Amino acid sequence: MLESLKREVWQANLDLVKHNLVVLTWGNVSAIDRESGLVVIKPSGVAYDDLKPEDMVVVDLDGNVVEGDLRPSSDTPTHVALYRHFEGVGAVVHTHSTYATAWAQACRSIPNIGTTHADAFYDDVPCTGEMTPEEIKERYEAATGDVIARTFETINPLHTPAVLVAHHGPFAWGESAAKAVANAVTLEEVARMASITMSLNPSVEMNRNLIEKHYDRKHGKNAYYGQKK
Amino acid sequence: MLESLKREVWQANLDLVKHNLVVLTWGNVSAIDRESGLVVIKPSGVAYDDLKPEDMVVVDLDGNVVEGDLRPSSDTPTHVALYRHFEGVGAVVHTHSTYATAWAQACRSIPNIGTTHADAFYDDVPCTGEMTPEEIKERYEAATGDVIARTFETINPLHTPAVLVAHHGPFAWGESAAKAVANAVTLEEVARMASITMSLNPSVEMNRNLIEKHYDRKHGKNAYYGQKK
Amino acid sequence: MLESLKREVWQANLDLVKHNLVVLTWGNVSAIDRESGLVVIKPSGVAYDDLKPEDMVVVDLDGNVVEGDLRPSSDTPTHVALYRHFEGVGAVVHTHSTYATAWAQACRSIPNIGTTHADAFYDDVPCTGEMTPEEIKERYEAATGDVIARTFETINPLHTPAVLVAHHGPFAWGESAAKAVANAVTLEEVARMASITMSLNPSVEMNRNLIEKHYDRKHGKNAYYGQKK
Amino acid sequence: MLESLKREVWQANLDLVKHNLVVLTWGNVSAIDRESGLVVIKPSGVAYDDLKPEDMVVVDLDGNVVEGDLRPSSDTPTHVALYRHFEGVGAVVHTHSTYATAWAQACRSIPNIGTTHADAFYDDVPCTGEMTPEEIKERYEAATGDVIARTFETINPLHTPAVLVAHHGPFAWGESAAKAVANAVTLEEVARMASITMSLNPSVEMNRNLIEKHYDRKHGKNAYYGQKK
Repeated sequence: MLESLKREVWQANLDLVKHNLVVLTWGNVSAIDRESGLVVIKPSGVAYDDLKPEDMVVVDLDGNVVEGDLRPSSDTPTHVALYRHFEGVGAVVHTHSTYATAWAQACRSIPNIGTTHADAFYDDVPCTGEMTPEEIKERYEAATGDVIARTFETINPLHTPAVLVAHHGPFAWGESAAKAVANAVTLEEVARMASITMSLNPSVEMNRNLIEKHYDRKHGKNAYYGQKK
Repeated sequence: MLESLKREVWQANLDLVKHNLVVLTWGNVSAIDRESGLVVIKPSGVAYDDLKPEDMVVVDLDGNVVEGDLRPSSDTPTHVALYRHFEGVGAVVHTHSTYATAWAQACRSIPNIGTTHADAFYDDVPCTGEMTPEEIKERYEAATGDVIARTFETINPLHTPAVLVAHHGPFAWGESAAKAVANAVTLEEVARMASITMSLNPSVEMNRNLIEKHYDRKHGKNAYYGQKK
Repeated sequence: MLESLKREVWQANLDLVKHNLVVLTWGNVSAIDRESGLVVIKPSGVAYDDLKPEDMVVVDLDGNVVEGDLRPSSDTPTHVALYRHFEGVGAVVHTHSTYATAWAQACRSIPNIGTTHADAFYDDVPCTGEMTPEEIKERYEAATGDVIARTFETINPLHTPAVLVAHHGPFAWGESAAKAVANAVTLEEVARMASITMSLNPSVEMNRNLIEKHYDRKHGKNAYYGQKK
Repeated sequence: MLESLKREVWQANLDLVKHNLVVLTWGNVSAIDRESGLVVIKPSGVAYDDLKPEDMVVVDLDGNVVEGDLRPSSDTPTHVALYRHFEGVGAVVHTHSTYATAWAQACRSIPNIGTTHADAFYDDVPCTGEMTPEEIKERYEAATGDVIARTFETINPLHTPAVLVAHHGPFAWGESAAKAVANAVTLEEVARMASITMSLNPSVEMNRNLIEKHYDRKHGKNAYYGQKK
């Protein structure tokens, strides 16, 4: 069942380790097969060294296990909420990568102050608001997906494919598992650069023209970065 | 004698190197066999590359060598004091890992401001008070254990399995050597994230509900993180 | 065509990875054959692991492709502008290396406050001014070369072979591809040291005598650093 | 000639790379044979990958080459000055390691605020004063040795085996090449920890009793750290 997608998701989980985005078992990737509405996700709390493609768990869009002997990631309700809310998204990555998590803990959005940021994220990478005590207590992981969706009411999630959950850490997404991992890598580097920039010039801002230009040359309809597809 | 425990302790010492928690020979792990009351600990000042399982030293709960040709770690009196004070503890790790040591040198507890922290440590990771001149001069390493114990008079050491000794560095513990190392790894990462967060928002605090939730989902009686055991 | 130069440029691109100056595909090296006026440059957005010497693209000094099946780097107009403006330059490197980019985002020149800096860069490494909205919109990459040239109107680009483009990141250059990479490595380390120094003593300055001495002993006519050539 | 010492010095130079203390070719180790008064030192500006034991250069205490085809390190006059000034020293290391250099650039001594520091360095690691314009111009490297010696007029160089040269970077020393490298490693880590501690608590100080205790248990006449010799 979804063997090819399982292999992609397994590889993407290992790539998190390769790119130094995870400590111990803190990270997970999922991807969705939009035709069947089924999601493939990493099992919970399994060491990356031991992970095999066939360990990936298949769940439906309500988070119910459809196939797999292991428990899916405890963050599964957040992943499926994001697939329900964001139609064009094919894969979701969650990590506790150091600098992105530090910004999330600071409850600050990462400002778009450099072209490295603008190449991947059109807006500031937003930090969510707080959840209510009821949300935290009764349906924490699903509510995490909802608070992310509320944050993107005025932001296009395909143009700014990442978020910081306040006090917690980052989620990133993309059209495929590999693209979602690349966005998570970019997010961590952008978070790191921005924290150093803040120490050198806390009030710097970037001109809107430069933001448009960098986003457009990579993602606009006349994009000229990379090879033709 | 305690061959299996020696191997676990030896492996755990090497894991400190793998996780970049030690420079030169600055770090040691011990574990206790609660039935016999005997403690297995790394020898003092031996390079990790040269370390063999049979080099591990066996001491009793007063720190007297029971078996082994090498001197035990100079921190042995601290380790045995922790086993005497904290009943449920099976293993102890001491390192001078960079960020945790920097907080210890700053004489500041690490505030519980993120879910990465709350997943492993229920409270702030406390920094001890000062030792008296007599404690330092006459029985320094044993007194280090005592000042840690005083710090935990109102904190449950099994819910917050780590401490910063003021001006010195961190100790962490757990039910097994592997778990104690994992807690030391988490402590260092949490210390690093918190120092970056402080530079971005020095006054941030985290809602108590979120702390309860994260600790409970991993360690509470209805824990749902990881695989069933 | 220019097989030997292609191999040098290919190797230099891989050296960016070895020296941890690039994340994903963010970096490129070019070199010029001054006799023919032809420039060899990395193709756009290709993963370093897949790069072969024959993938390098040959362009003329107006940026037109002369040989090669792949699109040249999207930064090609900046590279050729630098070759036109700076006569003695044989190779150009562009990266988004972390600390140099953080200074560029802060719109601050890196002050010459240490002998590590003075050994390689005679002046502060300057940060450019802003481009006009027209420059950004109509001819962004070529204008990037022009704003660099304006910045060096009163600075000798062979004595200070690097620049920070405001909000964007660093360019470095040298007589050969290997030397340009060495300058990019030095720039990143100098940027890192300077950001730490700023946190310890924001107002420090270095005596001009020391700057002269260090630059002269390495690059002056009686240079005595390294082996005789 | 001095084959065994050449091998030790060669190995120590490679160990600088292993411990991440050098970028490009910025670092050098020497050692002295006190009986003959001859010093073995790394050649200038040679890549570490290409270095062979027989490339090491032999110089006398005035810095004149006694054996070797390559130029000795341009810092040779500083090394020999240190051997002349500090009798018990057997080996000298110079690096531009990141954090120690950042403190040197800030013209600040590294305060003894932690037991990691006190285990290796009895006093603050001092930063030298400025050199005169004449010293810089006429005899820069030898004068670097003299300004270090002036800094240690009231400090025992065997108890605090390292210094920061203002605006430049660190020198460390020890009884052997291996010990001098270990001190350079410790210095860099101590510099790194102290810079983080400064960001968390800029005014922290450490009790003198703790300094005495840690230095004594490792280096005093009743030292009990490590194995008996």
